[in-house]
Amino acid sequence: MPLKLACAQIEVLPGRPDVNSRKMLDWIARAKQEGVDVILFPEMAIPGYMIGDRWEQPTFLDDCVHYGQEILAASQGITVIFGNVAVEKRRTNTDGHVRKYNAAFVAQDGRFLPGLAERDFWIKSSLPAYREFDDPRYFTPAAAVLEEKRLKAAKAFQPVTLTVRDREYRFGIFLCEDGWTEHYRLQVPRLLVGNGAQLLCNLSCSPFTLGKNGKRHRVFGSQAKDLQIPVVYCNNTGIQNNGKDVFTCDGQSCVYGPDGTVKTAAPMYEEELLVFTWDEGTDRIRAASYKDEIIATEEDEAAMVYKALHFGLTRFLAQVGIDRMVLGISGGIDSAVAAALYADVLGPGRVLLVNMPSQYNSALTKTLAQQLAENIGANYTVVPISDSVAHTVNQLYTPIHSYHTNRDFKVELTDLMYQNIQARDRGARLLAGFAAAYHGGFSCNANKAELSVGYGTFYGDIAGVLAPLGDLWKHQVYALGRYLNDQVYHREVIPRGIFDIRPSAELSRGQTVGNGGDPLEYGYHDYLLRAFVENWDKATPLEILQHYRDQDLDHFLGCEPGTVDRCFPSNAAFCADLERWYGLFTGLAVAKRIQAPPVLALSRRAYGYDYREAQLPPYLPRRYKELKEALLRQERLF
Amino acid sequence: MPLKLACAQIEVLPGRPDVNSRKMLDWIARAKQEGVDVILFPEMAIPGYMIGDRWEQPTFLDDCVHYGQEILAASQGITVIFGNVAVEKRRTNTDGHVRKYNAAFVAQDGRFLPGLAERDFWIKSSLPAYREFDDPRYFTPAAAVLEEKRLKAAKAFQPVTLTVRDREYRFGIFLCEDGWTEHYRLQVPRLLVGNGAQLLCNLSCSPFTLGKNGKRHRVFGSQAKDLQIPVVYCNNTGIQNNGKDVFTCDGQSCVYGPDGTVKTAAPMYEEELLVFTWDEGTDRIRAASYKDEIIATEEDEAAMVYKALHFGLTRFLAQVGIDRMVLGISGGIDSAVAAALYADVLGPGRVLLVNMPSQYNSALTKTLAQQLAENIGANYTVVPISDSVAHTVNQLYTPIHSYHTNRDFKVELTDLMYQNIQARDRGARLLAGFAAAYHGGFSCNANKAELSVGYGTFYGDIAGVLAPLGDLWKHQVYALGRYLNDQVYHREVIPRGIFDIRPSAELSRGQTVGNGGDPLEYGYHDYLLRAFVENWDKATPLEILQHYRDQDLDHFLGCEPGTVDRCFPSNAAFCADLERWYGLFTGLAVAKRIQAPPVLALSRRAYGYDYREAQLPPYLPRRYKELKEALLRQERLF
Repeated sequence: MPLKLACAQIEVLPGRPDVNSRKMLDWIARAKQEGVDVILFPEMAIPGYMIGDRWEQPTFLDDCVHYGQEILAASQGITVIFGNVAVEKRRTNTDGHVRKYNAAFVAQDGRFLPGLAERDFWIKSSLPAYREFDDPRYFTPAAAVLEEKRLKAAKAFQPVTLTVRDREYRFGIFLCEDGWTEHYRLQVPRLLVGNGAQLLCNLSCSPFTLGKNGKRHRVFGSQAKDLQIPVVYCNNTGIQNNGKDVFTCDGQSCVYGPDGTVKTAAPMYEEELLVFTWDEGTDRIRAASYKDEIIATEEDEAAMVYKALHFGLTRFLAQVGIDRMVLGISGGIDSAVAAALYADVLGPGRVLLVNMPSQYNSALTKTLAQQLAENIGANYTVVPISDSVAHTVNQLYTPIHSYHTNRDFKVELTDLMYQNIQARDRGARLLAGFAAAYHGGFSCNANKAELSVGYGTFYGDIAGVLAPLGDLWKHQVYALGRYLNDQVYHREVIPRGIFDIRPSAELSRGQTVGNGGDPLEYGYHDYLLRAFVENWDKATPLEILQHYRDQDLDHFLGCEPGTVDRCFPSNAAFCADLERWYGLFTGLAVAKRIQAPPVLALSRRAYGYDYREAQLPPYLPRRYKELKEALLRQERLF
Repeated sequence: MPLKLACAQIEVLPGRPDVNSRKMLDWIARAKQEGVDVILFPEMAIPGYMIGDRWEQPTFLDDCVHYGQEILAASQGITVIFGNVAVEKRRTNTDGHVRKYNAAFVAQDGRFLPGLAERDFWIKSSLPAYREFDDPRYFTPAAAVLEEKRLKAAKAFQPVTLTVRDREYRFGIFLCEDGWTEHYRLQVPRLLVGNGAQLLCNLSCSPFTLGKNGKRHRVFGSQAKDLQIPVVYCNNTGIQNNGKDVFTCDGQSCVYGPDGTVKTAAPMYEEELLVFTWDEGTDRIRAASYKDEIIATEEDEAAMVYKALHFGLTRFLAQVGIDRMVLGISGGIDSAVAAALYADVLGPGRVLLVNMPSQYNSALTKTLAQQLAENIGANYTVVPISDSVAHTVNQLYTPIHSYHTNRDFKVELTDLMYQNIQARDRGARLLAGFAAAYHGGFSCNANKAELSVGYGTFYGDIAGVLAPLGDLWKHQVYALGRYLNDQVYHREVIPRGIFDIRPSAELSRGQTVGNGGDPLEYGYHDYLLRAFVENWDKATPLEILQHYRDQDLDHFLGCEPGTVDRCFPSNAAFCADLERWYGLFTGLAVAKRIQAPPVLALSRRAYGYDYREAQLPPYLPRRYKELKEALLRQERLF
């Protein structure tokens, strides 16, 4: 009779060990009813994973340990493998705080089975310290324990032996990053198999990233195949955040057979007890259904983006207690997509759309805004801002007395100041006011290109409870808009006219839908800026200029062939544009991002604490200047 | 003839290897003129230390390496010990990025002397991952290299042998955290001395923290004494930041004799070539002057706070290109202290103070605000906000059409909403507008108690380029105010009346200077909140309630004896207060801090990216409820 296992793909609520352990107890009871022999829970299933410096509260740690004991007590007649923090009060981390491990426990019949280095738990070895991960800040790695005990890794990483119905099974238990073995010295899965593991169990708390699932299938699948062993991947759902970024954990727990293929999988963003059997003789995995959704959907980026945003927004708003949202809608694409998205999440009756025209807003965009509201079936109002802006301008012209010179003077306002006054008048004054009065929050509709260069106003359009589009380039916003119309609403909720108009802030006479759009040429700048922030090797103006010189910049950036040629009439224009945007990206835009709302993270690198940054003085790479001077000797490349 | 050494306490500009290396070349030339044999520069003297993910730009790394070569070329006739990033392109960090070390180089006569593990540099071993430090995110530690080469630490950490005027000297070179040996396995200074080092050199880039200098003297002094060896501590000045926190590096480079005492020291926050001689026979350190300022000033907290703020503000404003500041002044202490501080930094002629009264502001505070401006000699204007607030309220009452129900409705405003409208009207509308028109920035005057519980308004008073008082509790703000009057201005710049009035937001009829102040009782809440965020073991309501029950809460928190008794008429009142503020501290205040301006960090734990936090659901420790219930069975403790 083959062993019956279950991945408990639960939704974990970070910082709520009481709620999470309660749920685990329920699921254990359910698994027992279904005759499951071994149930797995994700990494840090009890405390949650991204809880910031709450790891420094001894009381919180005590509670996590306590709730772990409750899980232990529930393990009569079943084996429960779960992630939790392990605490050793007599030892310290290298920072002097009480010793903590990111650990996996194996509970069976009321006792913990022996783990690593004479402990009754397994310790995460590879502690990620990139992107949003701060593991070394909180946890001591397995290697430190082996050193203290003078144990060799080759011997120490033993599988745990489970006895089920008088038969023994050797499970290799490891945590999340220990499965991503590319660059770590300790190859935990290999060590476990070398020491006789018959099945590998990876407990994860893994945030969604576009393209990551495909990579995991390659890494974990080839691991299973190389080691000729089934690999169980148990991940949670739910959201976790580090303050500046909100991450969705997508679940997608699955089982890889020894041939490297996925034998069964839980869905994306849904709780599921994924039950399957494993015949340790034949290594055959059997499950109620084989689910290939994870591989099929990987390819459609807009679908994945929509799923992640829908789930992330739903959970985030629920967690912060917001069930109504206010959005300023301009008639442009970003606010339209955000409005359609929030209406989809909360229902159109819980969304208030506010159009706030000044004298610079065209009849076209005002009409489009109204059509959008009507199509969505949302609440809608129009509040012109000309009077309040005029009032502000008048007030700013109030005479100022200098006690320094004993003279009076007045400030002067430029066009740019006037534009920002409008944006702040809309954001911090009206939208924030409406949000409070509507008992909700208001949305920051900035996209990633705008956040990259700070094309937005402090306390104006860079404000709100969350930036749902803040990790999407402009072209991804359009794609999401099309997906919402075609696949979610199945009708033209976002009017076609909104897709067709040229993006424009409509903040001045020279900047309207008709006669002057955004200074960003998204077909080029989306990709240029992406190279600065998302490329594995972060690009600087030097590489950009080198590729420009070599005439393969379109290819390097991944934009449409011919884009660079189309956009720039001369080498001088190219360099001026490059320096302008890189200067903003590393300059004022950093200051704006520091005070920007949290971003719902989707990409390989989201602004916030995924991409970490300091306010630094301007700097261009050393060899940039000489390359530029060489290029400027000719007007165009050819 | 004793060896002549110099600590080059330079101001490092993070992210500007060109500027830093240029300065180093100048100082090397100067040291040569003074007959210096060995010159030391701080950790990461070329790139700067806190530069965020710029470490992922290969071009930036190339530049750092290039400028390191320029230093090397300048080492003819002198030994130059300096910090820089070391790059190994054929290896990777555990995240897969190109291998980087936080390294120290020893250049002599145009060549690098041999370092650790067959490299020509020394590698930082202890990589801090607490507070603002993210070293494991970017750098590979020495231990990894030793493992790869299968070297024993006891043998690997050899001193470098310098030959100067045909005599050999054995220097033990190590970096910053490797001197703070408390909790690390590798005790680098001890290993170096065990292998024959005659002098220890610690290169640091160490941010100022109140009380840290005293601790360093204890740690480094006792190290020198225990190991019977002189220790040279070389730190830089300047500011560095991680986005959310601005840190000042205070310099204070010094030399500890083998008796553990400071033999010579460079001043705080000033560049200095600290020249001294060392007789390796007698271990005698001689310098032009013995400077005991560092120890003397440690005791006066307000003086230290002032120095750090003055230096930090000066440098921060210069770096971001701001030379004029706008401040809203209410007649209260926070804005008064901030105004006096900015006027001290920029000169009173470059500060614009704006009083923005509504109908709730008293004649008293309006007069105090005007007196303050006059005393400072600043620019001053009064802009009443009643009209604009009324206009906003009218606009928020615009009918809203529901396309959902096809009916019109209006929102309703509560008193709290009305208060926040006033705050945003002042901040995002007027101050931001004035700042732009005055060609400057505007100040966020929030103190740490306010930031702790979010007692402030998004885009209202929680807005601005920097929160200079954001790491000071209310009682520290008062102390700084007194210091500014007494020690900086030597006159009553901040009117006595501002110290005397009860703090109040003056945002409603019930909340005025006369009849209802802030809901925070600073004499208690400053200390309660400090326990949550600054205590080594972060306190939760459980410990607070335990100490309350045990009647030693005043002592535990460090507030005036009798405070708790005075503040709370009953156990129920105590618990309600505790839950209220802890709920805000872990709830809405987190959301506000995420979008708050950068804080100038002074304490053991500043909000921002020093104290890291996630938005989490509410949670009270497991045993809190039962303890509370037990307490509520009696009205008061005794």
